[in-house]
Amino acid sequence: MGIHHYFKSLSDLEMIYRCPGKFKFQEHSVASHSFKVAKIAQFLGTVEELAGKDVDWRLLYEKALNHDYAELFTGDIKTPVKYSSPELKRLFNEVEEEMTRKFIEREFPKEFQKVYLGRFKEGKDETLEGRILAVADKIDLLYESFGEIQKENPEPLFLEIYEEALSTILLFKEMTCVQYFLQEILPDMLRERFIEQSELVEITEKMVEASKND
Amino acid sequence: MGIHHYFKSLSDLEMIYRCPGKFKFQEHSVASHSFKVAKIAQFLGTVEELAGKDVDWRLLYEKALNHDYAELFTGDIKTPVKYSSPELKRLFNEVEEEMTRKFIEREFPKEFQKVYLGRFKEGKDETLEGRILAVADKIDLLYESFGEIQKENPEPLFLEIYEEALSTILLFKEMTCVQYFLQEILPDMLRERFIEQSELVEITEKMVEASKND
Amino acid sequence: MGIHHYFKSLSDLEMIYRCPGKFKFQEHSVASHSFKVAKIAQFLGTVEELAGKDVDWRLLYEKALNHDYAELFTGDIKTPVKYSSPELKRLFNEVEEEMTRKFIEREFPKEFQKVYLGRFKEGKDETLEGRILAVADKIDLLYESFGEIQKENPEPLFLEIYEEALSTILLFKEMTCVQYFLQEILPDMLRERFIEQSELVEITEKMVEASKND
Amino acid sequence: MGIHHYFKSLSDLEMIYRCPGKFKFQEHSVASHSFKVAKIAQFLGTVEELAGKDVDWRLLYEKALNHDYAELFTGDIKTPVKYSSPELKRLFNEVEEEMTRKFIEREFPKEFQKVYLGRFKEGKDETLEGRILAVADKIDLLYESFGEIQKENPEPLFLEIYEEALSTILLFKEMTCVQYFLQEILPDMLRERFIEQSELVEITEKMVEASKND
Amino acid sequence: MGIHHYFKSLSDLEMIYRCPGKFKFQEHSVASHSFKVAKIAQFLGTVEELAGKDVDWRLLYEKALNHDYAELFTGDIKTPVKYSSPELKRLFNEVEEEMTRKFIEREFPKEFQKVYLGRFKEGKDETLEGRILAVADKIDLLYESFGEIQKENPEPLFLEIYEEALSTILLFKEMTCVQYFLQEILPDMLRERFIEQSELVEITEKMVEASKND
Amino acid sequence: MGIHHYFKSLSDLEMIYRCPGKFKFQEHSVASHSFKVAKIAQFLGTVEELAGKDVDWRLLYEKALNHDYAELFTGDIKTPVKYSSPELKRLFNEVEEEMTRKFIEREFPKEFQKVYLGRFKEGKDETLEGRILAVADKIDLLYESFGEIQKENPEPLFLEIYEEALSTILLFKEMTCVQYFLQEILPDMLRERFIEQSELVEITEKMVEASKND
Repeated sequence: MGIHHYFKSLSDLEMIYRCPGKFKFQEHSVASHSFKVAKIAQFLGTVEELAGKDVDWRLLYEKALNHDYAELFTGDIKTPVKYSSPELKRLFNEVEEEMTRKFIEREFPKEFQKVYLGRFKEGKDETLEGRILAVADKIDLLYESFGEIQKENPEPLFLEIYEEALSTILLFKEMTCVQYFLQEILPDMLRERFIEQSELVEITEKMVEASKND
Repeated sequence: MGIHHYFKSLSDLEMIYRCPGKFKFQEHSVASHSFKVAKIAQFLGTVEELAGKDVDWRLLYEKALNHDYAELFTGDIKTPVKYSSPELKRLFNEVEEEMTRKFIEREFPKEFQKVYLGRFKEGKDETLEGRILAVADKIDLLYESFGEIQKENPEPLFLEIYEEALSTILLFKEMTCVQYFLQEILPDMLRERFIEQSELVEITEKMVEASKND
Repeated sequence: MGIHHYFKSLSDLEMIYRCPGKFKFQEHSVASHSFKVAKIAQFLGTVEELAGKDVDWRLLYEKALNHDYAELFTGDIKTPVKYSSPELKRLFNEVEEEMTRKFIEREFPKEFQKVYLGRFKEGKDETLEGRILAVADKIDLLYESFGEIQKENPEPLFLEIYEEALSTILLFKEMTCVQYFLQEILPDMLRERFIEQSELVEITEKMVEASKND
Repeated sequence: MGIHHYFKSLSDLEMIYRCPGKFKFQEHSVASHSFKVAKIAQFLGTVEELAGKDVDWRLLYEKALNHDYAELFTGDIKTPVKYSSPELKRLFNEVEEEMTRKFIEREFPKEFQKVYLGRFKEGKDETLEGRILAVADKIDLLYESFGEIQKENPEPLFLEIYEEALSTILLFKEMTCVQYFLQEILPDMLRERFIEQSELVEITEKMVEASKND
Repeated sequence: MGIHHYFKSLSDLEMIYRCPGKFKFQEHSVASHSFKVAKIAQFLGTVEELAGKDVDWRLLYEKALNHDYAELFTGDIKTPVKYSSPELKRLFNEVEEEMTRKFIEREFPKEFQKVYLGRFKEGKDETLEGRILAVADKIDLLYESFGEIQKENPEPLFLEIYEEALSTILLFKEMTCVQYFLQEILPDMLRERFIEQSELVEITEKMVEASKND
Repeated sequence: MGIHHYFKSLSDLEMIYRCPGKFKFQEHSVASHSFKVAKIAQFLGTVEELAGKDVDWRLLYEKALNHDYAELFTGDIKTPVKYSSPELKRLFNEVEEEMTRKFIEREFPKEFQKVYLGRFKEGKDETLEGRILAVADKIDLLYESFGEIQKENPEPLFLEIYEEALSTILLFKEMTCVQYFLQEILPDMLRERFIEQSELVEITEKMVEASKND
């Protein structure tokens, strides 16, 4: 029993890689993903706050930092499996909750159990913070899939992930932070361009030519 | 639709690493594991054959090469989750079978579907070949965990895996090939020794001394 | 200009590895480290809160998530260099602040600049949250060096890092959360034991023996 | 002496990477390659069987699983070296056979030596199974080189490998399984297409537009 | 104290990767870079010698092999930081020299100190050998950035590095070896072409067609 | 044809890893190895020079930097194969020389061919520089195998490599630089010690205790 095991488990999240079984140019661990989601949620929360919403920052950060912790207990179950029947999904959620509860009771001293039971709850609820988490999680996934497409990963899966992530974000289109993302951030992402090798010839020739007149 | 997708999927098995989320000195992919299980099963089958048993080699190799293919559809579900309730286990099995069936119907031309439905069936049944597969699968797991323990991986999980693998092998202790493994192979594994840095001093001194008299 | 560049830069932190130029069994990125520090700070803050302290959670999470972001601009400067003279240290700090300010002015729209200038400030100040960050940062470093020592990394540097991290933690020994760490967590870490290969012989023999009487 | 060394050597094949000294996006080990060749040979054998041929499945699997095992003894000798003179080629083959024979005599108990001497023989002979192995080996090489070309590896070597592999396959064009490959599988491989970043703009705009009318 | 530590430190240079924090398809260590710079300098020196210049080969090799050794003491400080003010640059150089001096005095026996103090001096001075080093260092950087652009790395940084490297080379355009590089080597680099997947269709069809007439 | 191909091939040496097919904690490329051998040879040459020998530095550096370049053409052929018969060894050397000659004639302009034919010759001859190379090559191999043994690699091969490397070094025991190595450097290597986890308990307790009296 002990917090030591909990601290050690954080490092295990550095060794769970997302989307196994598909070729990727860049791997992302659950630990890194959780960091990025927390930072993106921070920005989205700031947008909502500037628009006059009341953000419970403590709650928002807790949701972002913990939202994938349970993968330590359950492993990586493919989404089509998880959602293949409502019955399986319900049972699976029960198992996940049970395992989390047992982990907390085994590793956490009494006085911390209540607060950690709250922290390990499913975070994507109907609160403002739950919705910000849902959006931030998908924005990071959008960036991960965009990174692969931009590096010319031929695997069609990444286009499917991009579309799935975007369509989930669009479900929250009434939120100010989603509108901000769609209008101010996404266009910049799409405007990113490649350096073509053919440009190199031109650039090189110009530079060599210019240097002759120095 | 097409065999092309099936051939391509073989390479995805090179990118699924066993036992994610735990520090390992050496990673093992599902593709490599399947290769090693097939080779170990080959040896175990040879022992049984020499002892007079009739081995259906075609069936044995099919079982060994295919036994983890379905991880492509389902992902890596941790064992405690899978076995947490008989109901969940039954549902998971149904989903796995359903997904395999759909994959075969989608990717394989009609004339191959029947033979591949057979090949993708759960292999660890009560036949001689099914039992050899069960043993070979655990022998490779024993070697994987032994490799980590021998490299001094401090993660206690690998001792648990070693014990779990050995205890499963012992369930089949009536089989000639298991007796052979226990008597002729396992003792050699356990006799492997470390090279201590302290030995280096002695070896070095002896060699330097000896060279003086050349 | 744009938040897009800021979001993209989060992924660059996944590719900065801590402590370059030394052999390590397990690498840790700045992104992963920031995640772990945020989670450790969360626990330490909970201890302080239970002890009756008032924790500004928003501030604590901001400090933890941002504390190493500036490495993107400055690179990894070895500590002995940074601290070689008070003058150099002062100049380096000025450059770091200047670069951070320029980055924010270039990439962030006006309305976000003030809040992000605050977020990117040096976090380890005299506030309760600043001190929790200082401790959490060193606890993660302690775990990183312990992980190497436990895996028998022969590099003496990791013992030096362990000692340096522990001695910084001890500077904050008046804090409730540090006392909790020293009394309840650190002893569990030190009690972790190795699995000796020699144990395997014994375990194996016992299991084989026991199975004979089944 | 012992089977233990043979079992352990299987794991060494996980650490021999094909085509060293050339930049690759995805590495393939000899163990993985052997697995894939066995699975491809399984399919090709099935095609031949459906066409009425008699397949010796035991032999086919043995050939596929063992065909590169001798690289453990000889290392990776570049093809132009191996074939630079008929004399050198003959000598290399003699050395390889001698080393394999010695390994079997040293590691395998008497009763297994004969069967393993057979299994480690050069597999690509004139039998149906030998020809299926020759084709399956090259199909996997074709997929490996295609994977690099598709990911835009600028190294011209991979085009040479693609051509060399295809031309070897074409030598066996009278075989039913080769005709099946050329007509049903290869066209699907060549039809695979890239996702262009430019498509993303269009897809994104359509999705955002559509969501406005929800 | 001892040469042993110096020999061991060479291996640390194998674990310092250039340009951290940016996605790269191929990593380059400081050890590999130093090797390549020494080989490129060898060629450039040969060009100068054939043109009648007197090359001090001992000096040239020493400069090339040692030019990045000090990164072991200072770490990887980003160029914009280093050059942000003349004062910082001066101070930083003083620290680097001081650290190098201390390292030599601590690790090298008296009789070797003078020669190694010379070897660890900043190599890019006004001598012929110093200028060859400056060019060789940038040619390797040009190749590293070209390798990324050719593999379609979307990171604009690599174009900036390419331009910066080329413009530094052009500063030395009066040197025979630079003229040789610009006229004989650079054009070959730029002429390198991609294999397009679309070519595969044509090549494949031609080969299949041709084989029909065998 | 062109120097461009020669420059590009240097990067291929970064992707040839030494001793494939054996588990290693730390990989070493041929490029890194060549760098380290050149630096070790530099030190050994300095010892000889201080002892009054005349060192041809140009020759020494050329030998060190080029000594494994031919692995690009031939691949990694295991030593027992190469030396299995004098006839094979002779033929193999002829092939290597032929391939090197052809490479130089194909890639190098006429005016450079002679000097590069000299540079690519087998370097380990009877000259002082040839003997220094032979020793430096084995010292680096000794360090590579020591690094594995020190990290507790259970593979007995590394002890064999250590012994083989040391016994080759001892063949040159009359050289001043070898005596220096044996007396001044090797003992320091062997004196390196492990950090035991058990020490951590003691160190930690002392530090915590001491901090109580601050």
